[in-house]
Amino acid sequence: MLAVHFEKRVASVRKVAKPRRPEGYAIVRLLYGGVCNTDLELLRGYYGFSGTPGHEFVGEVVAADDQSLLGRRVVGEINLACRRCHWCKRGLGRHCPTRKVLGIVGHPGAFREFLTLPEVNLHTVPQSVPDRAAVFVEPLAAACEILDQVSFPHRAEIAVLGDGKLGLLIAQVLHAVGHQVHQYGRHASKLRISAKAGVATEVAGKHLPVAAYDYVVDATGSVKGLAQAINMTQPRGTVILKSTVHGRVPMDTAPVIVNEISLVGSRCGRFEPALDLLTSGRIQLDEMISEELPLSKAPQAFRLANQAGVLKVLLSAR
Amino acid sequence: MLAVHFEKRVASVRKVAKPRRPEGYAIVRLLYGGVCNTDLELLRGYYGFSGTPGHEFVGEVVAADDQSLLGRRVVGEINLACRRCHWCKRGLGRHCPTRKVLGIVGHPGAFREFLTLPEVNLHTVPQSVPDRAAVFVEPLAAACEILDQVSFPHRAEIAVLGDGKLGLLIAQVLHAVGHQVHQYGRHASKLRISAKAGVATEVAGKHLPVAAYDYVVDATGSVKGLAQAINMTQPRGTVILKSTVHGRVPMDTAPVIVNEISLVGSRCGRFEPALDLLTSGRIQLDEMISEELPLSKAPQAFRLANQAGVLKVLLSAR
Repeated sequence: MLAVHFEKRVASVRKVAKPRRPEGYAIVRLLYGGVCNTDLELLRGYYGFSGTPGHEFVGEVVAADDQSLLGRRVVGEINLACRRCHWCKRGLGRHCPTRKVLGIVGHPGAFREFLTLPEVNLHTVPQSVPDRAAVFVEPLAAACEILDQVSFPHRAEIAVLGDGKLGLLIAQVLHAVGHQVHQYGRHASKLRISAKAGVATEVAGKHLPVAAYDYVVDATGSVKGLAQAINMTQPRGTVILKSTVHGRVPMDTAPVIVNEISLVGSRCGRFEPALDLLTSGRIQLDEMISEELPLSKAPQAFRLANQAGVLKVLLSAR
Repeated sequence: MLAVHFEKRVASVRKVAKPRRPEGYAIVRLLYGGVCNTDLELLRGYYGFSGTPGHEFVGEVVAADDQSLLGRRVVGEINLACRRCHWCKRGLGRHCPTRKVLGIVGHPGAFREFLTLPEVNLHTVPQSVPDRAAVFVEPLAAACEILDQVSFPHRAEIAVLGDGKLGLLIAQVLHAVGHQVHQYGRHASKLRISAKAGVATEVAGKHLPVAAYDYVVDATGSVKGLAQAINMTQPRGTVILKSTVHGRVPMDTAPVIVNEISLVGSRCGRFEPALDLLTSGRIQLDEMISEELPLSKAPQAFRLANQAGVLKVLLSAR
């Protein structure tokens, strides 16, 4: 079978043996994989990663202990948790200290024709959700995570900073559940996508509003984003950190302390609310797909995904 | 009357005219002032401050519109708020955007024989609370502020980093309300004070526990403190920021995001819970007073307060 391989900052596609199936694991035939910024960072050498990347996927189960899974279309939670520690027992396997992470830490990823995951990680995809929407469940779950972490009041005014893939999903999710979202970005062409979904959008100049929002989501992916987000937040307000920036970010803690602002780190989320949102049809994803390439052209897909203005690039193995 | 004066990084004591009393204001005769690290920072030139510093005090009302205040022993909230904006109407005048701050921003401070404050800022001190305890109400209120901001579970395990004046007050406050406090500091002599009050203390070496607490208070006052506090916090845990460090603090946001940690900036607090705690006798302050000097020797008091190992220095005008 074909599998993408990262090594020493080079992406290739190799022919490898089909994976064997450990007990409790399913083998899933890939339909679509989605290229995430994390994949691009792995390719740049972060985390010292080598192997098969990929953690956004939709596929079809071809082998499993649970016979009812066979032939089912699935998406899969990316954290392979121990299921025994107190994090796992609290339903927070995403924070299990010995977890492996699909295509990121200790478990080969989804960018291969057949992938493996524990059956407990799988969620079947409702018929009404097309493949090219289902492949967004993982990042959509990361957007939904904010709703699990922050107790927003009814119809909260929330600013979303950034109009990348995650920013567009976050703005749509917060809007879909009834909040008043104002998204600031740099690209009119990207902001148009969330504007179509009903989000108020603004191409941000240098001057962003000051102390204007109780809630600000930093999804800029930039070092400056955090300081901008803090600056936009009212006293006693909350900044949600969705930008993983590598290395140290210089932060002036004085405004955080003086204005008693809370900063909330936010990462992966549960798949259930993301699947519910997709099923409801309230999230528009078609325009977020910039390109679809076959798995065999993965290196080209990564180059494309690195270009400015490009949103989601899909790898197809259908 | 005598008044301390800061100008161009020099502290002096001057003879000045007694202040006039605007309507709604009281004139308070100083009994004790407490030297805070903020005063030392003002003296070092932060905020471009010049004038009379001082925001920790206990005094006696000598003139006021409200006749019932005359002769009463009082402490005073340091934020002079507009009382009209939506912050003030929510009881959060401490965040009023046009506030002045006693001895810090736009209103001369308490280190003078007679000071002025709006009568609404004053709290009378119960007879059972001695002057040398009452002078701690302002920093004690800042410690109590944590209880207003964070919903701790019953008997929460909380780490307090730092054994300076504020760290010692915070550890005692959290212990007094029933939490399990573990304080880490560098000075056995300082930690002894909170240990006497029942706090578990530890002289911290280079190796602090990792991912060990749900709640960590950074009261180190150092640039490294925040990173250390984040490192000690469990996934989904909370770091309370009590260290105002000037300038930019390099922060690695990755562990905050990956472990979904919340950082909560915390500043001034309400005086009521601080006065209640003092009245209850559950906070031990005597040993926190390193020295008491007359107001006329204020420059010497600031030099002393700057020395390592020195805790609270009081200015007496009795």
